[in-house]
Amino acid sequence: MLNSWTKKYYLEMNKPSEEDNRTTKERILDELKAQGHEEPTKLDHKVLQEAYGLCEEYEWSVTASLVYDGMIWHVNRLEAGDTTDAHYGIAVDNGSTTIVMEVYDLNTGVRVAKKTAFNPQIKYGEDILSRIFFTREDPANRMKLQKETAEGYNRLMNELTRETGIDLTSCGFMVISANTCMVHFLLGYDAFQVFSSPYAVQTLNPDVIPASELNIHMNGYIYIYPSKANYLGGDIISGMIATDIPNKESISVFLDIGTNGELVIGNRDFLICGAGAAGPALEGGSVKTGMRADRGAVDTVVIENDEVKIHVLTGQGNVKPDARYGEPEDVAEPKGICGSGIVDLLAQLFLNGIIDIRGQLNPDKSRHVVKVPHPEYEEGSNEEVLAFEYAPGLLFYQFDIDEIVKTKAAAMTMVEYMMGLVGLELTDIGDFYISGAFGTHLNKESAVVLGMYPDFADRRRIRQPGNTSLDGAVAMLLDRSNADKAGAIIDMMEYVQFGAVAEFLHLMVAASAIPHTDLSRYPSVVEELKKRGK
Amino acid sequence: MLNSWTKKYYLEMNKPSEEDNRTTKERILDELKAQGHEEPTKLDHKVLQEAYGLCEEYEWSVTASLVYDGMIWHVNRLEAGDTTDAHYGIAVDNGSTTIVMEVYDLNTGVRVAKKTAFNPQIKYGEDILSRIFFTREDPANRMKLQKETAEGYNRLMNELTRETGIDLTSCGFMVISANTCMVHFLLGYDAFQVFSSPYAVQTLNPDVIPASELNIHMNGYIYIYPSKANYLGGDIISGMIATDIPNKESISVFLDIGTNGELVIGNRDFLICGAGAAGPALEGGSVKTGMRADRGAVDTVVIENDEVKIHVLTGQGNVKPDARYGEPEDVAEPKGICGSGIVDLLAQLFLNGIIDIRGQLNPDKSRHVVKVPHPEYEEGSNEEVLAFEYAPGLLFYQFDIDEIVKTKAAAMTMVEYMMGLVGLELTDIGDFYISGAFGTHLNKESAVVLGMYPDFADRRRIRQPGNTSLDGAVAMLLDRSNADKAGAIIDMMEYVQFGAVAEFLHLMVAASAIPHTDLSRYPSVVEELKKRGK
Repeated sequence: MLNSWTKKYYLEMNKPSEEDNRTTKERILDELKAQGHEEPTKLDHKVLQEAYGLCEEYEWSVTASLVYDGMIWHVNRLEAGDTTDAHYGIAVDNGSTTIVMEVYDLNTGVRVAKKTAFNPQIKYGEDILSRIFFTREDPANRMKLQKETAEGYNRLMNELTRETGIDLTSCGFMVISANTCMVHFLLGYDAFQVFSSPYAVQTLNPDVIPASELNIHMNGYIYIYPSKANYLGGDIISGMIATDIPNKESISVFLDIGTNGELVIGNRDFLICGAGAAGPALEGGSVKTGMRADRGAVDTVVIENDEVKIHVLTGQGNVKPDARYGEPEDVAEPKGICGSGIVDLLAQLFLNGIIDIRGQLNPDKSRHVVKVPHPEYEEGSNEEVLAFEYAPGLLFYQFDIDEIVKTKAAAMTMVEYMMGLVGLELTDIGDFYISGAFGTHLNKESAVVLGMYPDFADRRRIRQPGNTSLDGAVAMLLDRSNADKAGAIIDMMEYVQFGAVAEFLHLMVAASAIPHTDLSRYPSVVEELKKRGK
Repeated sequence: MLNSWTKKYYLEMNKPSEEDNRTTKERILDELKAQGHEEPTKLDHKVLQEAYGLCEEYEWSVTASLVYDGMIWHVNRLEAGDTTDAHYGIAVDNGSTTIVMEVYDLNTGVRVAKKTAFNPQIKYGEDILSRIFFTREDPANRMKLQKETAEGYNRLMNELTRETGIDLTSCGFMVISANTCMVHFLLGYDAFQVFSSPYAVQTLNPDVIPASELNIHMNGYIYIYPSKANYLGGDIISGMIATDIPNKESISVFLDIGTNGELVIGNRDFLICGAGAAGPALEGGSVKTGMRADRGAVDTVVIENDEVKIHVLTGQGNVKPDARYGEPEDVAEPKGICGSGIVDLLAQLFLNGIIDIRGQLNPDKSRHVVKVPHPEYEEGSNEEVLAFEYAPGLLFYQFDIDEIVKTKAAAMTMVEYMMGLVGLELTDIGDFYISGAFGTHLNKESAVVLGMYPDFADRRRIRQPGNTSLDGAVAMLLDRSNADKAGAIIDMMEYVQFGAVAEFLHLMVAASAIPHTDLSRYPSVVEELKKRGK
């Protein structure tokens, strides 16, 4: 039996009689005890409003749903007959762009359904800061955002209910993993402090909260992953639970590249962590022809003899489709380039000598390098810029390359700086994780060439764990003892403030090279360049 | 400082700074600890939605309201500046006819205001059984009754708010004392089982419940007195707390005569209790010209030389007015007779020989005894009945007398039977309580003549404690340690089922005499009769 936050018990009770005239409440609580449920348990007031009628109608054979609120158990639902088979819970990854929801069978631990939707907050701003300004315009907007978010949850639950036939409003528990800002938005708290020094946010540790208090239509409670700091949110703690890094003997590096970059280094003996602005460019966010990993996105690039070979995604939907290698007759026209395509493209440009170690395009090295008017200058301006035409009519500009290099440099600098803090060398690292959708679909070799992953001889140590925020939410849903573990992880973590560190700049310069100024760290890249006669 | 269910703390906190960037939640909880509040405490989710703005605006000087839910404390409100002076709570006696509400200053324990209203359930039936049938007609009616009751509370709170200028919706705590049926109605539970064998009710022990779950407009929690049994409700447990009988060395008899008669006998070593149908007649309920203790009610009767002298209440309002001896110029016309008047009348009739030991009117003994057509027979019937004209045009019928005698006999039989069970004699009794409005305004001498009180030489042992249900609610509001005491009292109590006992009938016959067949128990009555030459 799973150690979840909810339990269901089928109760066959005696009818009230002269000999046994216990109250309905006692009758139910006594029977739960008789079945081995010994923990402190409260029969919720509302349940007693309907209990007697239901018990009488079904001859005192009913199923009780129990849910744990972090302190005690609640009997919060009674159903006629034996419904113990139907026992579900919900795990959510609440990102700033998308909300992913999964439904689990809590008897078996098996996933029943999954659905993703855009975060409805987007209508108040694509980026988080715009949303914060929205909440600051008028105090009422904070609750507006809260309710919109909750409505997003409710819509997802409705759609999943339609798809599965499982009434999700009757679920007893939901686990949410999200960063500190998303948690503040969801709770209706002032999130300004998340981004404003001294970063004294409202809370890093939301309690288990009744769903009704969050306007989420579910008869139960919600656990929200606690955060370590304003920039190191519950989604990272969730990633720690998902990857089990804090229990390993070998030292791991865990890098989450999303809207920001978050980093944890450590093992069962220590955990240091930090966060910095290193993110959206790598997801295609600030690249001129960048796009999400959706139909029409170039996700794979190979350059051979100045011939650019691309793969174009054919998948449908809002998220990374699993139809990456879709039906061959379904060919999509390229419309832009997504994260994994960008990393491929830059690696190929470098390996073919079309960009140098600083990422500068060299027009002499490829016929696809063109000089064009700068797309962001006014018409009539004669400012020109180099670009690489990776597909007919689709240009990757010099400033796009610069942005990507800067971003990867920032991320890698964080890693190097933190490792330096605790006196670690790359050779001390067991596994190197890049989590998130971006990390999942990355071509490992390209990423190594770019210097985003260490050049491990054993490529299996390059980990692409996917959506660890969601996976940690699932782990929490299936095993409530993870809540104590999450608390212990936070206590163990040492948070490092970047930014005001002189050494940081120095490291940044080194990491801004492709793959790095110290090429000795990248033997396989050197080997490949040699092979190509460079 | 009172040991109430709520506390208020004025917090002067540091502003967030680089050196101290604790979260708002930590800042508040830490400051509470620093001020000596060490118990487990949760900052309610909703509070954090407004906390930061308020703290910023008032330079982190705010007042936190804490409330205890029976398990942990909640910070459930923040206010600007120091508002610790304004700290109030509510005590309620929820009777089947009237709801009495009192507001207390929880800093001083002083009563601030009091208000009474009819129980709005009356519109669904004067008597409780009609209300139960109403809830059985349609399951939706149960919640209808619940909401009507809550609305009654809300109206009383609104009126008290208007009167006092204290916003009662911001009170953190309310204590309610009521019988088991009233508790079921208030909670929206099926109350049919309260009156239906095997009396397996929904619960005898409601937890502390958020006011919002009861549709009562108050930002806090509600304690409802637990019951011992279906017929021995929280109002009696409340009476035990109010009178402190379970802590006394001497043995007390506690009789509550309302819609039913409830009885407790005991001291700190034992408590036996029971309940039976012995009530409404004594409150004037089933007497033809009976009325509530309101303007126009005869509340005092003296008969001298066949001259009937009466006092008529001039008070206004729905409840027993304190204007019993109102302005002499304000003279009310008699319209009927209330409980204390009835007891006076019967005692005077008996002492003047106008009724005999069985309560039979003797037309030869008074010119006020008249023979009239039975008021409840069809016109044209020649059924006649004796009656005593206690005021011009106001008749007290033979069947009224019979009803009163039967009721007092039932109550006294309960007392005698229970005393017999534990082998007690009247001489073992220290104090004899009759609680309720009826008991309060009773003329002790008349009550002794009637055999409703024992003929104690020390009349101070005849206790008229008033509304002990309300007093116990107040005691609970002011000192939450009484909750444990209430639980211990219930555990200590031994509930005796009357009814199916052969001995009961025999006792009943003896108790149906005025004052009793065994006159040796009533020496002062014998003395008085002798004085009068009877």
